[in-house]
Amino acid sequence: MKKTITPTTTIERLPIYYRCLQRLNKMNVDIISSQELGDKIGIPSTQVRKDLSYYGEFGRRGVGYEVPVLLKHLRKILGLDQVWEVALVGAGNLGHALVNYGGFRKLGLKIDYVFDADPNKIGKKFAGLKIHDVSKLQEVVKENGIKVGIIVVPAEHAQSIADDLIDAGVEALWNFAPTHLKVPQEIELKDEDLSIGLISLAYHLSQD
Amino acid sequence: MKKTITPTTTIERLPIYYRCLQRLNKMNVDIISSQELGDKIGIPSTQVRKDLSYYGEFGRRGVGYEVPVLLKHLRKILGLDQVWEVALVGAGNLGHALVNYGGFRKLGLKIDYVFDADPNKIGKKFAGLKIHDVSKLQEVVKENGIKVGIIVVPAEHAQSIADDLIDAGVEALWNFAPTHLKVPQEIELKDEDLSIGLISLAYHLSQD
Repeated sequence: MKKTITPTTTIERLPIYYRCLQRLNKMNVDIISSQELGDKIGIPSTQVRKDLSYYGEFGRRGVGYEVPVLLKHLRKILGLDQVWEVALVGAGNLGHALVNYGGFRKLGLKIDYVFDADPNKIGKKFAGLKIHDVSKLQEVVKENGIKVGIIVVPAEHAQSIADDLIDAGVEALWNFAPTHLKVPQEIELKDEDLSIGLISLAYHLSQD
Repeated sequence: MKKTITPTTTIERLPIYYRCLQRLNKMNVDIISSQELGDKIGIPSTQVRKDLSYYGEFGRRGVGYEVPVLLKHLRKILGLDQVWEVALVGAGNLGHALVNYGGFRKLGLKIDYVFDADPNKIGKKFAGLKIHDVSKLQEVVKENGIKVGIIVVPAEHAQSIADDLIDAGVEALWNFAPTHLKVPQEIELKDEDLSIGLISLAYHLSQD
């Protein structure tokens, strides 16, 4: 794989390309132009060509992209040819929605372990997974080589859960708690602040 | 308000500044430097100054920002001094999590109406709100001047719900269904693809 600095916006579009190509592949579409691909995901064809050019030369001028070939490349680029063990901490509604999220299944991803501190929840089933005691978090993470942690706990508990996950060997964190976490530089952190979506809509409405 | 083209990344940081300043204000902090503000939200001070400069000159060189003043300005910039009626369609786990989301309350935002198609859900309470019949969607949207719609339905129903909301007068859509929606240009659309968070972590792990 080429070692270049790829813009975040490009990286964020990769799964969208991937899902679109999966759908085309199922429909037995063999070739797609950058124009058609752009139309399907709502961006200009020039951006499609630019995004994909960071990873190699996949298209043929005047012809387009071979769907199965591009799909295979994207799978590798996205790390979907590897298996990542994923743990989610916080067995609430958002956690439940994430475990069940159709978008993950479409990408072949899944959440493997769920943890909570509530004695009424521990041991129960949660979207098909057993809820583990959060006091066993480090033990289970270490034993199973879990590398990805999803934090869906109240803001006041998020930092200590993050610290525990990192101590036990987690290398990437996805944080839904509405707070900024401090993590060592080598840890990949994605803060998912859901209020940003609503606020950015209010912002745009108020500009009219 | 100045009419300039502000980068999306700046707009997305505004609610983060806002929440941080709210917290400082509660703690009776009067003045904060761009350095301290940047540290708190995890970005460089130069970026803080650049972000805020799109909206005016709020800071004083060598002194910093007056917390209550900046907070008031941000409130206006973000449209939080106005009330937007918000409807959510899809009374599932993700919908429940959104209605209950602490991050909204911290910003003074809330969801006002919930709709679903399931006869077993219609009329029941859902995080304190009554679930309305989705067949009444257009009627309720029109009657109440709802301007913001949140779509949390399965992918296959998302486009028709979006069409109904827009027909009834909604101007901004926040779509959680893992599919790309087609909407008229004047409609503000934010696609929230939750798989992007997980996939971008897998991507970064696979680059190591």
